[in-house]
Amino acid sequence: MTEVDEVIHAVAVIASKRDGRELTDAQIAWVVDAYTRGEVAPEQMSSLLMAIFLRGMTRREIATWTRAMIDSGRRMDLSGLRRDARPLATVDKHSTGGVGDKITLPLTPLVASFGVAVPQLSGRGLGHTGGTLDKLESIPGWRADVSADDMIAQLEDVGAVVCAAGADLAPADRKLYALRDVTGTVETIPLLASSIMSKKIAEGTESLVLDVKFGSGAFLRDIDQSRLLAETMVELGSDAGVRTVALLTDMNTPLGLTVGNAVEVAESVEVLAGGGPDDVVELTLALAREMLDAVGLTAADPAEHLANGRAMDTWRTMIAAQGGDPDAALPVADHCDVVVAPADGVITVMDARAVGDAAWRLGAGRSRPGESVQSEAGVTIHAKPGDRVRAGEPLFTLHTQTPERFAGARAVLVDAVEVSAGGEPPARSLVLDRVSS
Amino acid sequence: MTEVDEVIHAVAVIASKRDGRELTDAQIAWVVDAYTRGEVAPEQMSSLLMAIFLRGMTRREIATWTRAMIDSGRRMDLSGLRRDARPLATVDKHSTGGVGDKITLPLTPLVASFGVAVPQLSGRGLGHTGGTLDKLESIPGWRADVSADDMIAQLEDVGAVVCAAGADLAPADRKLYALRDVTGTVETIPLLASSIMSKKIAEGTESLVLDVKFGSGAFLRDIDQSRLLAETMVELGSDAGVRTVALLTDMNTPLGLTVGNAVEVAESVEVLAGGGPDDVVELTLALAREMLDAVGLTAADPAEHLANGRAMDTWRTMIAAQGGDPDAALPVADHCDVVVAPADGVITVMDARAVGDAAWRLGAGRSRPGESVQSEAGVTIHAKPGDRVRAGEPLFTLHTQTPERFAGARAVLVDAVEVSAGGEPPARSLVLDRVSS
Repeated sequence: MTEVDEVIHAVAVIASKRDGRELTDAQIAWVVDAYTRGEVAPEQMSSLLMAIFLRGMTRREIATWTRAMIDSGRRMDLSGLRRDARPLATVDKHSTGGVGDKITLPLTPLVASFGVAVPQLSGRGLGHTGGTLDKLESIPGWRADVSADDMIAQLEDVGAVVCAAGADLAPADRKLYALRDVTGTVETIPLLASSIMSKKIAEGTESLVLDVKFGSGAFLRDIDQSRLLAETMVELGSDAGVRTVALLTDMNTPLGLTVGNAVEVAESVEVLAGGGPDDVVELTLALAREMLDAVGLTAADPAEHLANGRAMDTWRTMIAAQGGDPDAALPVADHCDVVVAPADGVITVMDARAVGDAAWRLGAGRSRPGESVQSEAGVTIHAKPGDRVRAGEPLFTLHTQTPERFAGARAVLVDAVEVSAGGEPPARSLVLDRVSS
Repeated sequence: MTEVDEVIHAVAVIASKRDGRELTDAQIAWVVDAYTRGEVAPEQMSSLLMAIFLRGMTRREIATWTRAMIDSGRRMDLSGLRRDARPLATVDKHSTGGVGDKITLPLTPLVASFGVAVPQLSGRGLGHTGGTLDKLESIPGWRADVSADDMIAQLEDVGAVVCAAGADLAPADRKLYALRDVTGTVETIPLLASSIMSKKIAEGTESLVLDVKFGSGAFLRDIDQSRLLAETMVELGSDAGVRTVALLTDMNTPLGLTVGNAVEVAESVEVLAGGGPDDVVELTLALAREMLDAVGLTAADPAEHLANGRAMDTWRTMIAAQGGDPDAALPVADHCDVVVAPADGVITVMDARAVGDAAWRLGAGRSRPGESVQSEAGVTIHAKPGDRVRAGEPLFTLHTQTPERFAGARAVLVDAVEVSAGGEPPARSLVLDRVSS
C-alpha cells in the first residue's frame, strides 16, 4: 500500500466504525498492524478507539482484534516446562484492576507452592489502580525485568514468577494500553477484553483465572457490564485453547487496609504469614482454589499452605530469584498525615475510587507512562465499612515523600466515607458470581 | 494547573462528552486553549472530537467552542478600510467545500468590482475537495502569503484579495482542521460550523454569505443536515455581529466542466470573460447578488460586470497585486487519458465525490498537510447529467504529471457515471434554499 492508500484506508476504517458498521477481519488486522508499525498515527487510533467505545464491537470483531494483537508479537509456549523430568502445569490469574488489589503477591507463591507453574506477567499502574510491578519494586533489589529464558528457568525452579512482559509480547496492546489511558477509552468491554486476553493468550498459559471486578474502584462500575466482560473473556480464552474461568468480585470498597506500594507488600507478607485482613485472605483463597482446580488439584487446600509457611517459603525464593531481599526493611514515608472520622457511628460506605485517587495523588501512581512512583506513598485504612467509629478517630493515615501532596489527597478522602449514626451497612459478599464456558 | 492536573482534566473532559454530558464553558475554554498550547495531546483531542461527533453538541456548546477558537488568536478589524476617504463595506463568502467549486475565483473580483472590499482568507485543499489557494498557485508568480498590512492595502486599493490566513487567525482551528482530516471527524455540524465561523468572525468581515453544500461531493450528503449546518452558522455569525446569510446548494454533480487546479483557473477566467459553464455562472451570480445585497447594493447587477469586463479587470489587478501574471499561460499536464461512455443514452448521474477523488488521485490534492500538489493535474468533463452520449464518446479527460496514477483514477471514474437508455435525469435546481437570521 502506498502512503496515500494507507491514509485513505485509516480514515475509511475509522468512518466505518463511527457510522456503526461492523469492521471486517481485513480492516482489523490491517489497522492493528499498521498502528503497531507506526503507519496509523496515535491520533487516528484514539479516534477509532472512541468510535469503538461508543459504537461497540460484535464478538467476532473482538475475537479478531484480540488475534491481531497476539499476532503483533511472539506467542510463548510454556508446554515444555519440566520439574524433576515431569511436565509442569501452568495457570495464571489476572485481575481487571482495583484499589488495594495486592492479591497477586500472596496468590502467586501460594499456588506455586503446590508444584504448579504460575507465570505472572504484570504491568505497571496508571491512574487510580496500582501496578503489581510498582508494588514489588519497593522491595530492595527486586527487578521486574526477567529475560524469557530466565523466566522459564524460574518457573521450572521456583514455580512462581512475577515480571514485566517482554517487549515482543502483544506489542500492539502495549502501545494501545498507554494510548487508551490518556484518551478516555479504557472502560469498554471490547477494549478491556481484547487487551487482557491478548496478553494472557500470547503468554502461553494453559489455564487462566480471571478476577473481574465491578464497583466504584473498578473500570466497570456495573455488575452486569462486568459479567458481560467476564463472559467475553472466558469465550476468548476458551476459543484460543486456554481453560478460562472468571470470578465476579466486589470493588466498591478497597481490598484490605493498605493502598499504595510498600504498604501493600507489607500487608501481602502478613497474609503469607497466616494473618492479614479477612477480605484479602478470602479473595486470595477463592482465586487459589480456582487456579488449583483448573490444573486438576481439586483436593489441595490453599489455606493450609498459608498456615504452614509453604507459601511464604515460595514467596521468599521467588523474591530472591529476582534479586530482592525478602528480609530487607521496606521503605517508610518521611511524612504522614491523618484523616479522622467526622462523626460517631458505623461506616456505611468507603469509596474505593476515592481511596485509590488519594494514594495516586500522594505519589503511589503515575500520570504518564514512564514516570517514577514513590514506593513509600500510600494510604493505610484504620476502619472499614461495618466498623463503628467515634468522631475524631483516625480513619486513614496518608504517607508520602512530598508533603505538598497531602492537601489534594485529603480533599478526596474527606468525601470518600459515609458514617451513619443509626444503621448497619448492608452485608456484602466479596465474590458474587463465577463464569465458566 | 500542574501537569498531573491537566492530564486528569483532559481525560475528564473527554469522558464527560463520551458519556453524553454537556461540556461547561470552562471545560471548553480550557481544552481548546490547552490543545493550542500543546498541553492536550493530539490523540486526546481526536478522541474528544470523535466523542463530539457521536454525541453532538448543544448550540451553547458550539457557540462557546467557536468563541474559544476565535480567542486562540487575533481578531482582525476591517472597519477602518477606506477608499477615496470613504469607508469601504466588507463582505466575504465561504463555501463548505465541493468538487469543481472554483466560485471564489470569479466571485471575489466580480463583487469587488462594485467598490466593495472582499477579504477572502482561504485554505488549502485536503482530501477530495480542492483548495482555492492551490488553484491560484497554478498562475505563474502568484503568492498566497500576504501580510496583514499588505492585505489591508490591497483591499483599499483593489478591493479583492484571496490569500492564506495568517498564523494568528484562529490558530486553534488551524490545528484542529488538520487533525480532523486524518481522524474521521470532519463531517459533523458542531465541528464544521465552529471551524468555518471562527475563522470568518476572526477575519473581521462585516457581512458573510455562506454557500452550504449538500450531496455526494459535500461533507454532508443530506439536505436537512446541511440546512441545520446553515442555520447553526447563521446564528453564530449573527450573534457575533456579522450579517450572515446562507444558500443551500446542490453538490451531487461537479460544478462546471473542470476539477483540479490550473483547469479550474482556466474555467474561472472564461466566466470572467462572459462565458463559462451555465452552472458556474448561475452560482457565481446568485452568490454575488447575496453579497451585494448584504452591503446595501441591492440595485447592482453582477451579470453586467461579467459582460462588460469590469470583473475581469479587477481579476487581473488582483492577480498582479500578488505577483501573478494574468497573461501567462497556465501549466498543462504532460500526460492525459480518456474515460469513455459505456453505452448510448442520457447521463442520469455523475457522482461528484468520485470525480473529486479521481482528481485527487491524479495529483490535484494532497493526502497530508504540507504535501505539494500538481498544478497540472485534474479532470475535464465532456458531458454532464442531462446530456446525451454515445458509447465510446469521451466523458472525462484525465490530466497528470505522473501517469502511474491513471489506473486508480480511472477505476473511480468508471463507476461515477450512470447512463440510461430511456429516461431523462430529474431536473435539478442548483440553489435549493436560503437561510437568514
